[in-house]
Order: sequence, then C-alpha cells, then structure tokens
Amino acid sequence: MGYTDQDWKAINTIRTLAVDATFNSNSGHPGAPMGMAPVAHVLWKNIMKFNPKNPKWLNRDRFVLSNGHGCMLQYALLHLFDFGLTIDDLKAFRSVDSITPGHPEAHDTPGVEVTTGPLGQGICNAVGLAMAQAHTAATFNKEGFTLVDNYTYCFLGDGCLMEGVSGEASSLAGHLQLGNLIAVWDDNHISIDGDTNVAFTEDVIKRYEAYGWHVVSVSDGDNDLEGIEAAFKKCQEVKDKPSLIALRTTIGFGSKQQGTHGVHGSPLKADDIKQLKEKFGFNPDESFAVPQEVYDAYNKHAAEGAAAEEEWNKLFAKYGEKFSAEHADLTRRLTGDLPEGWEKSLPVYTPADAAVASRKLSEIVLSKVEGVLPELVGGSADLTGSNLTRWKEAVDFQAPQTKLGDYAGRYIRYGVREHGMGAIMNGLAAYGTILPYGGTFLNFVSYAAGAIRLSALSQVRAIWVATHDSIGLGEDGPTHQPIETLAHFRALPNCMVWRPADGNETSAAYYVALTSKHTPSIIALSRQNLPQLEGSVLEKSVKGGYVLHEEEGADVTLVSTGSEVCICVDAVKELKEKHNIKARVVSIPCFEVFDAQSKEYRLSVLPDGIPSLSVEVMSTMGWERYTHEQFGLNRFGASGAYKDVYKKFEFTPEGIAKRAVATVDFWKDVPNIRSPINRAFQQLI
Amino acid sequence: MGYTDQDWKAINTIRTLAVDATFNSNSGHPGAPMGMAPVAHVLWKNIMKFNPKNPKWLNRDRFVLSNGHGCMLQYALLHLFDFGLTIDDLKAFRSVDSITPGHPEAHDTPGVEVTTGPLGQGICNAVGLAMAQAHTAATFNKEGFTLVDNYTYCFLGDGCLMEGVSGEASSLAGHLQLGNLIAVWDDNHISIDGDTNVAFTEDVIKRYEAYGWHVVSVSDGDNDLEGIEAAFKKCQEVKDKPSLIALRTTIGFGSKQQGTHGVHGSPLKADDIKQLKEKFGFNPDESFAVPQEVYDAYNKHAAEGAAAEEEWNKLFAKYGEKFSAEHADLTRRLTGDLPEGWEKSLPVYTPADAAVASRKLSEIVLSKVEGVLPELVGGSADLTGSNLTRWKEAVDFQAPQTKLGDYAGRYIRYGVREHGMGAIMNGLAAYGTILPYGGTFLNFVSYAAGAIRLSALSQVRAIWVATHDSIGLGEDGPTHQPIETLAHFRALPNCMVWRPADGNETSAAYYVALTSKHTPSIIALSRQNLPQLEGSVLEKSVKGGYVLHEEEGADVTLVSTGSEVCICVDAVKELKEKHNIKARVVSIPCFEVFDAQSKEYRLSVLPDGIPSLSVEVMSTMGWERYTHEQFGLNRFGASGAYKDVYKKFEFTPEGIAKRAVATVDFWKDVPNIRSPINRAFQQLI
Repeated sequence: MGYTDQDWKAINTIRTLAVDATFNSNSGHPGAPMGMAPVAHVLWKNIMKFNPKNPKWLNRDRFVLSNGHGCMLQYALLHLFDFGLTIDDLKAFRSVDSITPGHPEAHDTPGVEVTTGPLGQGICNAVGLAMAQAHTAATFNKEGFTLVDNYTYCFLGDGCLMEGVSGEASSLAGHLQLGNLIAVWDDNHISIDGDTNVAFTEDVIKRYEAYGWHVVSVSDGDNDLEGIEAAFKKCQEVKDKPSLIALRTTIGFGSKQQGTHGVHGSPLKADDIKQLKEKFGFNPDESFAVPQEVYDAYNKHAAEGAAAEEEWNKLFAKYGEKFSAEHADLTRRLTGDLPEGWEKSLPVYTPADAAVASRKLSEIVLSKVEGVLPELVGGSADLTGSNLTRWKEAVDFQAPQTKLGDYAGRYIRYGVREHGMGAIMNGLAAYGTILPYGGTFLNFVSYAAGAIRLSALSQVRAIWVATHDSIGLGEDGPTHQPIETLAHFRALPNCMVWRPADGNETSAAYYVALTSKHTPSIIALSRQNLPQLEGSVLEKSVKGGYVLHEEEGADVTLVSTGSEVCICVDAVKELKEKHNIKARVVSIPCFEVFDAQSKEYRLSVLPDGIPSLSVEVMSTMGWERYTHEQFGLNRFGASGAYKDVYKKFEFTPEGIAKRAVATVDFWKDVPNIRSPINRAFQQLI
Repeated sequence: MGYTDQDWKAINTIRTLAVDATFNSNSGHPGAPMGMAPVAHVLWKNIMKFNPKNPKWLNRDRFVLSNGHGCMLQYALLHLFDFGLTIDDLKAFRSVDSITPGHPEAHDTPGVEVTTGPLGQGICNAVGLAMAQAHTAATFNKEGFTLVDNYTYCFLGDGCLMEGVSGEASSLAGHLQLGNLIAVWDDNHISIDGDTNVAFTEDVIKRYEAYGWHVVSVSDGDNDLEGIEAAFKKCQEVKDKPSLIALRTTIGFGSKQQGTHGVHGSPLKADDIKQLKEKFGFNPDESFAVPQEVYDAYNKHAAEGAAAEEEWNKLFAKYGEKFSAEHADLTRRLTGDLPEGWEKSLPVYTPADAAVASRKLSEIVLSKVEGVLPELVGGSADLTGSNLTRWKEAVDFQAPQTKLGDYAGRYIRYGVREHGMGAIMNGLAAYGTILPYGGTFLNFVSYAAGAIRLSALSQVRAIWVATHDSIGLGEDGPTHQPIETLAHFRALPNCMVWRPADGNETSAAYYVALTSKHTPSIIALSRQNLPQLEGSVLEKSVKGGYVLHEEEGADVTLVSTGSEVCICVDAVKELKEKHNIKARVVSIPCFEVFDAQSKEYRLSVLPDGIPSLSVEVMSTMGWERYTHEQFGLNRFGASGAYKDVYKKFEFTPEGIAKRAVATVDFWKDVPNIRSPINRAFQQLI
C-alpha cells in the first residue's frame, strides 16, 4: 500500500522498455506488457519472493507468463531486477542467438521458469508447478522447518482461456484445491481478431467458480495499484482453492491506439511513441531509458530476496542436522541425478521367462524402481488399469481433506485430459524436485502434441507411458490404432521415442529415459504379450539399436521394433526352411538414441553389402533412413481380435518372409550395396 | 408421454443386445448402452425425425454418440429401426471387416453421422452439425419453405467433458446461440479410473451455464421416461441457446455390478447376464433376441419418418419451381461436386508477376473462388489478419441478434481454439451442404491432431490454411516454427499435405483440395514473399510433384517444396557458375498426391542414374523416400529476422550448393544409381 509516483515511474519504465524493444526490433507485442505493467510491478516488487542472484533457489515464488507473446514484460522485469539481462540484451530482442527470443525460453534466459508462447500452455505449467510445490512441501516440510511454501503466479490472456488445454488443467487444479496457485487474467477484451465479443462471450468468472476456483475481480487494472495488491493478499489467504484475479486492463495503455488490437502484435509508430513518452514524463528522444530510482527500488526488493534465501539456507542446513536423509534426498533431487546404484533395481529377463505384454513390463519397472526413485511421480489420463501406471501400494496425490489421498501421494489421477497432463508434467519437472511420468494410449499422446513439443524444446525430462501402441490393441479399432504417431514424434527434435520388444528392452528404455535429464521420452508399449527374446540385453538396447540375431553370410537384415521383433525372429526360420535365405535381425527400439551412436557402430548394425527390410505395423515414414525396403502400414487399421488384424495385414512370419524374398531378389544384381547409414554430409544439429 | 411396458421391453432389448454383442465378441463396453438405453429409446422413438430407408435425407435430425465406446447402443438402435444392420452384423461386433467396428465409423455404417470414440470429438462434431444446420437454414429457407429445421442431438459422457476440446466447442456454441443443439450428459459418476470424484469434481452444470447454455437436470435417468421426454421438449423450446440435459444414470443398469467401473469396458459374466435377462423378462437361454413388438413399435416410427421425408420431397420440388437457382445449388451441394467451370476462377501467374507470400496467394484464391463456391465456409482460430482467410466482403457467421453478422454469414470466428475448429469442421462437412476451411499457424495445426486424424479416417473434405509454415516466420521463434509438423501429417493416411512454392502451385493445391471429396488437406503457406517461378504450371503441380527445371546431362536433382524451391533455383546458378555442376530442380508440393501417380511418371521426375538432394527447412524425415541425400533441419529453429534465420541454418544458394557438391561427390563412383522410386514390393494400401 502507499503507492507513489516512484511506482508509476517504474511501471512506465516497463512500458517504455517494451515499446522501445519492439520498435527497435520492428517486431513483437507491446500491448500486453503495457497493459499488464501495473500488476507486474505490484506482484514483482511487493508480493513475490525471489533472489535474482540465484534464480534457481528452491523456495522462490514461481512466475509464469502464459501469454508468452508479451515477453517484453518479463524481459523488462528480469533486466530491472538484475537477473543478468542487460540493456543490450533488450536491444537484441528477437534477434538470432539473443537471450531475448520472440517468446520466453526457459533454457536460454535466467529467470524464465517455463517456455511459453503457444497459448494455454503456461497456465497448465503453473498448475504443475503448484502441484509440485504441494507435493514437495508435504514430503519434506517438518514441524518448525517450512522448507517450501512458495506460491506460483501466472499471467494469462483471453487466448489462454479459449484454449481447451487450460480448461483441462484448471478443472484439475480446482479439484486438487491448490491454494498456492494465483493466476491473473488480463481481461482486456482484445484478441488478434479484434474485440473478444466476436468469439468469446462466456462468463469466465462463473466458469472458474465452476472449476472450484476462488475468483476476485479488479475493475481498474490500469490505475488501482492498491486494489491489485489487496486482491493478491486476499488470494493468498484462500488456502484450499486456486485463485483467479479477473483484472480489467487496457491493452497498449498510453498508446494512441490503446484498447484496440492495433497495439497487440505490432510495434507502435514513432509519433505514438513520442506522445507516450511525453505523457509518461520520459524524454522522447531517449530509448531504453531507465531512471536510476527505478533500479534502486527494484534492487531493494532483490536484496530482500537475497536475504530471504540466506535465511533459508541456514534453515536448510539446520534441517540437514535433524533430517539428514531428507536433506540428502532433496539436495540430490535438485541436481537431477538419480541415486547411485538405482539401476540395479531394473528387472532383467532371460528367454526362459514368460511372455508378457510390454505395458505389463513397464508396470514391473515402475514397481521395482519407485522405491529407489522417490522423485518419480506419475499418473494416467483415466486409463490406470489399462496403462498399468500405478504400483500396488501407491498413494494418490489428492487434497488430504478428500480422504482420497494426500499431497505426499505420488500417483496423479489426471482424468481424461491428455493435453493438460502433458503441460502439467512440464510444470512438475520445472519445479526441480519431481521426475514426472504420465500414461495414456499411444494414439492419444497426439492430443498432447502441443505440450510435448514444449517438453522437447525446453529440454524437460518427462516420460510418456504410451500403451496400446499399434493395431495390436485389436478390437477398439482404427480410431484407437496409431499409424502416424511414431513418425510424428520421431521427427520432433530432442524427443526419444522408444518401442521396446521385450523385458530387457523395456528396462533399457526406462534406463535411458530416466537418466536423460534434458529430453522427454515416449515409451510405446504393447497390449499383447511378447516373448523374452534370445539376444536382447540391456547393455546393447541402451544404444537405441543393435544386432539381436547375427547370421554369417546373411542375405538380408530384418530391422524392427516392439511387438514385430519376435515375428521377425520367426520369419528367420521361415526364410531358412522354406526359401533357403539367411536373415539377421536388428532391433532399433529408439531412433534418436541410435542416431547418436558412432557411425562405426551404426554401420556394424546395418552394414554395407546386405539389403535390409524394416518391419513395423505403422507408417513406414522415416524407415527409409535405415533400411532399403520397408514393410509397414500406410493406411488405417481395423477393428478385430489382434491376431486377426495382424493376419489381415500380413504381419506374420510368412508375410514378412514374402517381402524379405522380394527384397533379396530386388537387390541381388546391385554390387556393393550401400548401407543407408552412409551419407554424403552431416546434418545440422 | 404415456409410457408402457412396451417401452420398457424396447429399452431392455437395447440393453440385452449390448450385453449379448459384447459377450459374444468378448470385448467392448456394455455399461454406457445399458445406462443410456432409456434416454436413447425416448429420443429415437418419440423425439427424433429420420428415415432409415434414406439415412442421408437432408432434414433428418442428427445423432452423435460422443461417448463412442458405447457404440452397441447405436448399433442396436440402427438394427431395431432397420437402417440395414442385421442381427448378424451385431454378432460380428468388433470383428475384422464388419460394419460394427469397435467405435462408430461414419463411412462404414449406415446411420452413423460422424466417426467417434476419441473422447471429446463427438460433441464438437455436433456443434459443427448444428452450425451447418443454422447456416443452411439461413441460406436456403424461404417464407413458406422451411427446408431445414432439424436438431442435432448428442450423447456425451464424463470423459468427453473432461477433454479440453469439448470446452472449446461448447464455449463457441454458447456464443453462437445454437438453439438447434441438444446434448445429453450421461452423468453416471463413473470413468475408467473409478468414481469420477478422483479427478472430476467441477460443477458441470454451472460451467455450461457459464458458456451460455441452457441446462436442465433429470435426476432419475434410469426410470423417469416422462421426465426425459419433457426435458427434450423444454430444450427444443429454447431457441437462442444450446441445451445440455444433465441426466443422472446408472452405468450398466441391471447388472450385478451396475454403478461401478466394472461394467464400463468389459463384457458381463455369464451368470450376470442370466440374472439380468431373467430380471428383464427375457429368456436367459436366448441371445440376440428381439421381441416382434419392439420391431413393430420402432418400424412405426420409422414409417412416420419415411412419410415425413416424402412430404419434404414434395416441398422441395415446389421450392424448385419457385427458387430454381437455390434448388439447383442445394441439390448440387449434396452431391459434393463443385459447379462446372469453377476452376476457371483460380488465379494463374507468370514469372513476370510480383513475388507474394503464399499466405497472400491463398487469400487471392479464396477471394476469387468464393463467388463460384457458395458452399465454402471458413474461418480462423483468431489469426484472421495473419492467415488471410477472410475475403473482403465476407459476412461473419454470428447469431443475428448480436448484429455482428448472421447465420448466412460464411466467415467463422473460431477464437483461439484450433482443436475445436478441427473437430467442428468435421461436423460442418458431415452435414452435407458445406465445404469447410480453417486457418491457423502451421505449428498449431498440431493442437488439432486428434480432429485431423478423424478427418482422414472418416474421409472428410476439410481444408487447413496453415500459414507461417517454417522458420521463415522469423522473429516469433522456435515456439512457433514447425519442424516435425509436415512429417507428422504426411505420415497420416488419407491426408494431403501441400506446400506450394508459388502462385500456380497454390492454385493447384486448392484445386486438388477442393475437388478431393474424401480427403482432408493441410496447405502450408509462407509468411515471406516468394517469386513466381519459371516452369511452375497448375497442370503439372496437380500431380503433386513435377520437374520445374530440366537440364540435359544433369549431375544432380534438387528436390524441394514451398519457400525453398526458389532458393534451389538460385542454387542451380551457383552450382553452374562456381562448381561446373548441372542441376535439375523438382518440386514436390504434395507427397500423397505424387505417390498416387504412375511409377513411370514418378520415375520421369526422379529418374535413375542421377543422385538427388532434398531441400526443406524442417525435419528430413520422410524425404529418404524420394531422394538420396537430405538437407533439412532436425533441430529447433531460432528467433530472428527470417533472412538471418535462413542464413544461420545455411538455407541459401551457397548452403544448398555446398551440399549438392557433396552429394555429387559421394555418389560419383556408384554405377547405375537407382532412383528411390524403385521398390522391391508394393505397400499395402
């Protein structure tokens, strides 16, 4: 309370920085930063707790800009609070290799918690951050040792509210009674198409109340700093509901075009900037000007944050004396490393072991490792019994007053909300203490494409347990049978797509997924039983591709993944007995990891001189990179018992043998057959 | 009103058919059909208007089963009303090549309007059907000639309500005041993970009221047939709001496990079936039994529908006498054919014409053809000014009382709701009188993956205007720059992905997209200007791939799409002048269409004997199918001015030339280089 001219100077500095940066780069979105500068000032200067000198301090308040196009707001704050962004960085806004890209990117810019821009994602990340806080508090806080009690704050615009994914996560946040989450809706009545009344006339406040949120309104977000502060404080008091502040603002406040979509996505014109700076008491001939008193005021709050962290560090040291195991666990978790020797818990199989569906093999892995990996927190989008994602003794992550579980619980009931789950996992991972996984059918991982893309871009370790991974799911039919899904995510940079063939490969998939700190994974798993293969071992499988079955003087290499590998093994017999053809078998459970191996190794797996045939019951797209010929399914599947469906499409030893014969025949006159591993030049990566 | 034992016999027949079919196939979901049999009976027998003998009659009421896993409900009704489904079809439930697959598929089964099963989609399709009805009525109805006044009815479950996509479409439906849409929420408190209270405790009724819907509750959906009928009638009276009937039911009604998730997704046990049939007065030793009186009662209503259509046919004939142009237009639209000669409106370019961004070329096409294609109805997910999807004189599709447009308007303001837009387009197309298109950035087409998959599977003509199609969008950066998107949708069966290089190719893309009655299209379009190319003509481009620039004795073929084709043309000069290498250029704007050409033609484009290099600024995945070497971007992009970004990644004449030289060098010792078009065997399609 007691806001003065100094506060308005700070607010107008944020505005002019946003105006100057977008003008200077001739690109970007000035409107949202100008409209939200007052609430940002109140929040960052008087409400939020953080230490710019250590943007990774565990108990900092989290800030998420879900309307990421307004990132000059965030960059201006990060500069003014001295997170390490210089005025030159602001001048380099939206230029190649700057740390101030067109939308906030978490791995590039200190102080940016999550990568935003694609609308609707940030608010879901915020839900994940708040869930992670609740879980970490319930797990580690002790009487007298409140290690974590931070809030998560999120700004979001109309666009975020229109996206369905935000509704999914918001409904779940209400269900989970996340009192540590406070979102601010920039209710400016404007989206790119103009007035929101052309498409968005629902009662947002009522909708959020329906989700179980606490909602307060601030009618004059342009001027009422006291009202804004009071709203935040009121929301902090509500402990059993997430809060939404409906903040009426004027987009592009101060511009001659304020309140119109003309200020949304284009820089202001020179004369507009001139009148705006004059109006705000700035020198119209200066750009990127920051009054020293603004720096001073913000530095003061930054220093308070640094002191708070220092206090916290002392508390945490004392905690360590009393709770050394918890202290060590939390310290380790924050590094992202797994406990030494954890991998000894991974199950190992021999060919004598029973045939098991790989979804079940996945359940066995989770059950074996959950005890040694306490950071593993997962769930399913309402397919628990099908995805087999829940170990037997798991406790549900629920508000304790529901008696359905508690916040220390490690199993999340996401509901039928795949996209929300994906975006929430990005938030869970960003908090720093959790390694998230989530289950659904492989076909519905596509619903979450927008979130997984951001996992990959922002280098988040999140694991998808993607069961029912092919036409092998059988009777549910083509609406549920993935064809294009693996190609889609294999084409996504920094995303591992695993399709293990048996138990050892499933352990390998989890080994690599769990230890890859900066890469998301999708593990595609079968509904149907798969035998334990002769020749599959974890040590080879972790290379992403290996020779499962070698054969001296082979005529052809069969290359496959997942549930088709065992059919290829049977095809080897068929080829030998009926066609006098010698075949070797290669398993490539993960393209991304195989591609990272040395060329020498890859050529040993897929050597020159032998034609090769890939076998996978889905789109052949991408397989041309590894094999000369491809047997796949470039059409939709069919509804029926899985054996009937496999037979219909000839994914049988005979069907494979037939195509192997054709492959051998087709390549027999080609001298010095080149392995596709050989390339004329290196790809840019 | 006046329900009798006969009604209950019909209801219990539906239930026992669902029980018998799932038991017989040992697969499927009996719970929803058993719980919703009463409301289905009331709706189909006493409310809905349809003629089983002509499931395509224009003015029929539409029925959508958004909880598609409950499809035995729909199949039972389609059998009992004699849509052409026999008892044997029910016995073949979920078996290969039956017309009763695991989830309803519109192109396979008479009477199924849209393909459902992936949760959340059906209710959006229903919104699209209702929008199409409103549009068709506003366009064709005349004083005294109410040609269309049908309702769209939709059943949906908790899962559909949890999915964000349903929220997107429902919010829009409320905004659009669609009084012709009546949805029934099967409020059974059960989803796969058990009681919905584990994840879904929001106030659904309040949420739908917030969207602007009219909501009524029926507290005893198991027994209160009168109440159900009254609810439908009340909803029909509300003309300016869509309606939701919150219907409390018991899943698996009649089973020993009723009200639990045990009856959701697995057949009932034999002893349970026995007690259930006895309870319902059916012979426990009989399966698939239908009392004749049930057939008779349903046939009576079917006959009323047939009579109604006959009346309608007379009305339509009279309409034709008075409004012959409208009659001809509507009749033509229902065939899916476009008006003769429409293609003459497509713009044609010569190399002398100015360089234009292909998003602008798309706008020119839309503006030129909208006059001759009145069925073209489109919009954008809040990116109208960026996607350039709105022709100048377009009227918005809005409720007339808003004064923002009217229902005859052909431009839809979707809001920031890509997934909802995709699913709504499937409904718009399914109505039969509209050819829908929708715009967003290519990168955000991925948000709608779930809907596009169903467009492809159910053979729907819908067109995505996907602008800002690459790193060429520049400053918005990697969060907005597609890398994997084309590979994703190229791998999807029956989906055309176009990436035109200039004006003539843009016309070609639209030509094929608009005339392909059974295939969706994604047209990827540039933000940046592209020159009109020497050698590009519509007649060649419609083949999906062609030789843009031929060169006698060429050393290498450069193969490209979209905005990189013109850079390849410049690279030809660079190669000739600096490296004495002769290069030819091939443009492949659409893989799917090129693949459909004769092998002879494809080999003429990509001949044996010459090494080839693909050039496209995104994932190389899939290009190995056409070329020996690939230049692409298997990493995320960068934020900066587009020319800087292209330069950073070496997508310049020099960068291409460098790789072409490497390609020629790498392949120079290989005799008889084989074109990748040659294959050992044919793929299954």
